[in-house]
Amino acid sequence: MACFKRGKFALTVLILQIVFIVLFGVFADYSDSANAKVRKNSLDPSKGGADPGANEVADIYPMFQDVHVMMFVGFGFLMTFLKRYGYSSVGFNLLITALVIQWASLMGGFLDMEGGKMHFNIITLLTSDFTAAAVLISFGAVLGKTSPLQLVIMAVCEVVLSKVNEWIGVTQFKAVDMGGSMFVHVFGAYFGIVVARVLYTRDIQEAEQKEGSVYHSDIFSMIGTLFLWIYWPSFNAALAPGDDQHRAVINTYYALAACTVTAFAVSSLLDEENRFNMVSIVSNMVSVANNMVHIQNSTLAGGVAVGTLADMMIYPWGALVVGFIAGTVSVFGYKYLTPALARVKFHDTCGVNNLHGMPGLIAGIGGIVAASLATEDNYGYSLYQIFQARAPELNSTKYLEVIQDLHIEAGDGRSAQAQAAWQAAALGTTLGMAIVGGLLVGLLLRLPFLNQPREDQVLDDTDYWEMPEEGFPGSASVEICTVDFDKLKGSAITTKI
Amino acid sequence: MACFKRGKFALTVLILQIVFIVLFGVFADYSDSANAKVRKNSLDPSKGGADPGANEVADIYPMFQDVHVMMFVGFGFLMTFLKRYGYSSVGFNLLITALVIQWASLMGGFLDMEGGKMHFNIITLLTSDFTAAAVLISFGAVLGKTSPLQLVIMAVCEVVLSKVNEWIGVTQFKAVDMGGSMFVHVFGAYFGIVVARVLYTRDIQEAEQKEGSVYHSDIFSMIGTLFLWIYWPSFNAALAPGDDQHRAVINTYYALAACTVTAFAVSSLLDEENRFNMVSIVSNMVSVANNMVHIQNSTLAGGVAVGTLADMMIYPWGALVVGFIAGTVSVFGYKYLTPALARVKFHDTCGVNNLHGMPGLIAGIGGIVAASLATEDNYGYSLYQIFQARAPELNSTKYLEVIQDLHIEAGDGRSAQAQAAWQAAALGTTLGMAIVGGLLVGLLLRLPFLNQPREDQVLDDTDYWEMPEEGFPGSASVEICTVDFDKLKGSAITTKI
Amino acid sequence: MACFKRGKFALTVLILQIVFIVLFGVFADYSDSANAKVRKNSLDPSKGGADPGANEVADIYPMFQDVHVMMFVGFGFLMTFLKRYGYSSVGFNLLITALVIQWASLMGGFLDMEGGKMHFNIITLLTSDFTAAAVLISFGAVLGKTSPLQLVIMAVCEVVLSKVNEWIGVTQFKAVDMGGSMFVHVFGAYFGIVVARVLYTRDIQEAEQKEGSVYHSDIFSMIGTLFLWIYWPSFNAALAPGDDQHRAVINTYYALAACTVTAFAVSSLLDEENRFNMVSIVSNMVSVANNMVHIQNSTLAGGVAVGTLADMMIYPWGALVVGFIAGTVSVFGYKYLTPALARVKFHDTCGVNNLHGMPGLIAGIGGIVAASLATEDNYGYSLYQIFQARAPELNSTKYLEVIQDLHIEAGDGRSAQAQAAWQAAALGTTLGMAIVGGLLVGLLLRLPFLNQPREDQVLDDTDYWEMPEEGFPGSASVEICTVDFDKLKGSAITTKI
Repeated sequence: MACFKRGKFALTVLILQIVFIVLFGVFADYSDSANAKVRKNSLDPSKGGADPGANEVADIYPMFQDVHVMMFVGFGFLMTFLKRYGYSSVGFNLLITALVIQWASLMGGFLDMEGGKMHFNIITLLTSDFTAAAVLISFGAVLGKTSPLQLVIMAVCEVVLSKVNEWIGVTQFKAVDMGGSMFVHVFGAYFGIVVARVLYTRDIQEAEQKEGSVYHSDIFSMIGTLFLWIYWPSFNAALAPGDDQHRAVINTYYALAACTVTAFAVSSLLDEENRFNMVSIVSNMVSVANNMVHIQNSTLAGGVAVGTLADMMIYPWGALVVGFIAGTVSVFGYKYLTPALARVKFHDTCGVNNLHGMPGLIAGIGGIVAASLATEDNYGYSLYQIFQARAPELNSTKYLEVIQDLHIEAGDGRSAQAQAAWQAAALGTTLGMAIVGGLLVGLLLRLPFLNQPREDQVLDDTDYWEMPEEGFPGSASVEICTVDFDKLKGSAITTKI
Repeated sequence: MACFKRGKFALTVLILQIVFIVLFGVFADYSDSANAKVRKNSLDPSKGGADPGANEVADIYPMFQDVHVMMFVGFGFLMTFLKRYGYSSVGFNLLITALVIQWASLMGGFLDMEGGKMHFNIITLLTSDFTAAAVLISFGAVLGKTSPLQLVIMAVCEVVLSKVNEWIGVTQFKAVDMGGSMFVHVFGAYFGIVVARVLYTRDIQEAEQKEGSVYHSDIFSMIGTLFLWIYWPSFNAALAPGDDQHRAVINTYYALAACTVTAFAVSSLLDEENRFNMVSIVSNMVSVANNMVHIQNSTLAGGVAVGTLADMMIYPWGALVVGFIAGTVSVFGYKYLTPALARVKFHDTCGVNNLHGMPGLIAGIGGIVAASLATEDNYGYSLYQIFQARAPELNSTKYLEVIQDLHIEAGDGRSAQAQAAWQAAALGTTLGMAIVGGLLVGLLLRLPFLNQPREDQVLDDTDYWEMPEEGFPGSASVEICTVDFDKLKGSAITTKI
Repeated sequence: MACFKRGKFALTVLILQIVFIVLFGVFADYSDSANAKVRKNSLDPSKGGADPGANEVADIYPMFQDVHVMMFVGFGFLMTFLKRYGYSSVGFNLLITALVIQWASLMGGFLDMEGGKMHFNIITLLTSDFTAAAVLISFGAVLGKTSPLQLVIMAVCEVVLSKVNEWIGVTQFKAVDMGGSMFVHVFGAYFGIVVARVLYTRDIQEAEQKEGSVYHSDIFSMIGTLFLWIYWPSFNAALAPGDDQHRAVINTYYALAACTVTAFAVSSLLDEENRFNMVSIVSNMVSVANNMVHIQNSTLAGGVAVGTLADMMIYPWGALVVGFIAGTVSVFGYKYLTPALARVKFHDTCGVNNLHGMPGLIAGIGGIVAASLATEDNYGYSLYQIFQARAPELNSTKYLEVIQDLHIEAGDGRSAQAQAAWQAAALGTTLGMAIVGGLLVGLLLRLPFLNQPREDQVLDDTDYWEMPEEGFPGSASVEICTVDFDKLKGSAITTKI
């Protein structure tokens, strides 16, 4: 059966792509460091030209590529655990990301135009990938429960909301969030959860038996887990300079290590037979959630929970503590909270609340605390570079003192308490934007012509992809062999499979 | 059954390896920046020594490693989609690449000797990987239809032809092709397609039912797709300096994004049920091709199509347009052209014409156009660094003017039109070398003692690898269940499996 | 059945994690280049501050991340080849590594404290990953034959022994081993093999039929193989400076290439049907080993065998020779030595003797030879930077001569012969520590409350993980098809599949 009227999806997407081309044509230019005709790039360094070896692409590129792997392989494969939704998981992940990175480049550009032109560079690519992360987290919450068309509409809307929320938090509130725990993880998680709630129908409830995994689909999923785990320090550190970047790498590395060890311990502790949990033994929708993937997901919570704090002076032991808390909260969440929420129709396919939502809140709250404790004693003058709003005001005595040692831009002379308050404001705004935005976008997605999947289409590739002859692994032989042999007695039968 | 006489393959390969050792022993030395005894490396930088932190390995290494991943994981896994040829795909990919990178280092060295010695460095490793790409593309065209011995012979011959073709294009014609779209993709694709045509037999036609995929083999294949997709900017940018590299990264990123979105739309549009195409539902050889893997392959065409143009001033919108065209052409190619070609015995297992051939031609033609439009207005003096032959002639007035700002080597003072013509010449030569070379090598490979696979060996691991007890996935249950039920009549049987 | 008493594992691991937090709290600080409050980091470079762009994290990070991928994806997936132990392989690999990197950071810190504080930086993270490699190699030898609790205890003990051994070799003996072939590979392999021998029981022998692979589990394993292969140059070169690093990359690249080509040839030569070996056709424990995975493992032996030599002046041809020998020895080892050893109860699940043990010994011996041949003629003054103990003694005439050109620390004025002798001492000590250590730790692990797996738990995920409904791939169809054929009596059925 056709899952949507011929061409509706294709038309929407082609129109979007053409709109992107037009908008790029009107607005997008290379930034100076990528523009051959900028005179600096055509001169010898000794004559004031840009040094080719010191082009900013070289500084950022390795970490950018790590983040890029996280988006496509990390998120894409993490979601392949479903036994009948593997093509869609990894395929739609690719589609959505390819669409979002173009649209996020434009939206980011609109919020930061100079002379009517956007100037694209490696930072544009990196931040567009970050915005894609928010959308992919939401995708995890609605996974298997939307049509491709709904996904595309959701992504287009979410990019706008996410970029505006980030702009409010960073530019207006001057809140800091180096690893994007608030602006990416909290936003993406709660936006997606609310959308999933609005879209929840009886059809989804009925598709319960498809929510499980098979042995090899879980191993595919571990590819995603591991690449996310490995490259998370790059996610948290890519935009930080110098010692901040170094610190962000160290903190994230140890937070993840502690989180992983803790998640294994707690996962085993909560199972009555002390087994670890990687897969879901499906019996009903609620118990599915109950048995959801601790090891695939909770091991990563430390990376989220340390995100806002990554470049702060939390010391290696602080990173371990954050990881310890995140691993514990995340496993408890999968075990008890997700099934409880599912009972009130908050169905969260990948459990993004446990991997991104709650750990993101931990990060946000940790950020508030850390900001309130940050002093020149702990940070030296670096304080004013990390918390830019805390830099002294222009022409204040303090400002004149500081700039003798370090060239910084003047700030607002904020106190630690004020910075903490603005951190809280950013967290609150993010939650609010995510929830209200999710509600509105969810309602929009219920429009009938967006083809919400029917029961047989939920968590199922069949109607969206040309399938191989053998069908799904495991299930093929099941259907084939469970013939009622009693009925066959005395009859001549030809079975064709 | 033994697939080739005992030791024939082993002997050939061992002899090759020993020849490589001897040739390395006679000719290969470290380049200065990798040689401990070069005096510069034993002196303090302040005394004219080489700065360890600025060694060229540091500049190139991250992008080199990305390309390295593309060769082994990217190409290797992209080809695992076949249900009965997974070991061979990923295994022979490893073998061939390991062989080719040694031989390509030598061939590259022969074409660029100094004082009877080759000087190997990180660039040698990178360009040897590029040559491997050409061979692996050809491998995609003949996949499943050659013996390991034929593959090895093909690889050895192709390296020579490919390196000579590149030398003609780059050194003699001074054509530019930053992403290797002509010298790697066009060459590899058409060489492979012609070899496959020459090797085509009735046996291959009969093996049709093995050409399909199973659910998990397609997901394995997506590992390859994604790593190729992610790291393609490194492929196109690794050898470019400064702002050129920055631009090549940006252009490739956007070309791939647009190509992917377009490929999804067109794939859905061309299916009568609007499904996406990842797998092949096999009924006959022609229709297989008909249903071949759009998402696994066409999403990548943008990277090829932007290759020659990657470091040029095509602007972000230009990159999107290139991606848009490539995605469209590639999906149409898989849908209509591949089956049409198969009918005239051009059997192209992976459809490399659609992923590398036609997108490579788009790149080559795009390069001609872009070269004809390149002016000092668009590029500044960078024009003479990107199109080296366009640099003014030695001691011309123009040359004296330019070197006041930028130290460049004198060129031929070529006009834009002349450069465009030489680009066209390089493209034509590449096509010619690929087709004629493919023809000759194909004929060579038909020599009987090279053990072309028989019908039962086509697209089948069985004769080439020790197999696990359970056999191929999916097929195990099939074989198990095909019990002769007639024999069971009247008997009490316990089947234990 | 519960595999261990409720909570015993969880408690042990939680206590360890809390101990780590406390020890980190007491001892661990950031190194200067990661510490915001170090005044240098708060000053403009022009006023003596640290240049953010030149932070050491930037130099090391790309290669660190490559090594990080090797630990988690490389080792983790390499071990997924077992058909019923995939979750444990990749899951416990993650657990053990996350635990070890914390503990190794502490142990490394204890051996190198300044003023009662450890100073963590990117080098700490990298060397902790190296220590994890040793533990993961041992894990390969005992794979499937220990409980999670035994694994954790083994890891904790091995880290101490491994760090002490490395400290003796590097700091006391001043032996060089750039790629860690002795301190990581030889140590990890023989420690693990001895532990496996001590733990060997009849139960393990009985579990023979589970030791095989299935088709897709072997392809999963190739993910590990390839990422190890690709990133091995980073493993061998990460800690080397300048031209040494460049040389280490080149040498490792060519050693791996030659090793791979040779392994394919020898694997085919040793099979009576000239097939390649990727999988194990299981009939009994000994023959399993007999058919073990050449291509997945032996292709990597070149990286180990060139490790100690990586930064030495062995020239590209020398690297090829090392690879050639390693590939040959490794395949012969899998074919003949492993089954022979298994007969005397040295059961080595992954065959780490062939991938890490013997190639590590080759590297160690190669290092002795290369050290004995190293002269100022071959290395220039770099000799004193590579073999630090060979640097002239303080205030010797030679020292005064050298420091006019190159600032080096004074050494012991060792001769080439003396350096070779100390290399041999380090190799011998490593072997001794590994064997004695493995013996003691093995005995410790036999304590009954550590829950050594019973027969049904050997090489089996079932008791350690919540399993998916369908069970293991392949087995699903088995259970389903055991229909009671008695019921069919008297009926004529034609089944076509």
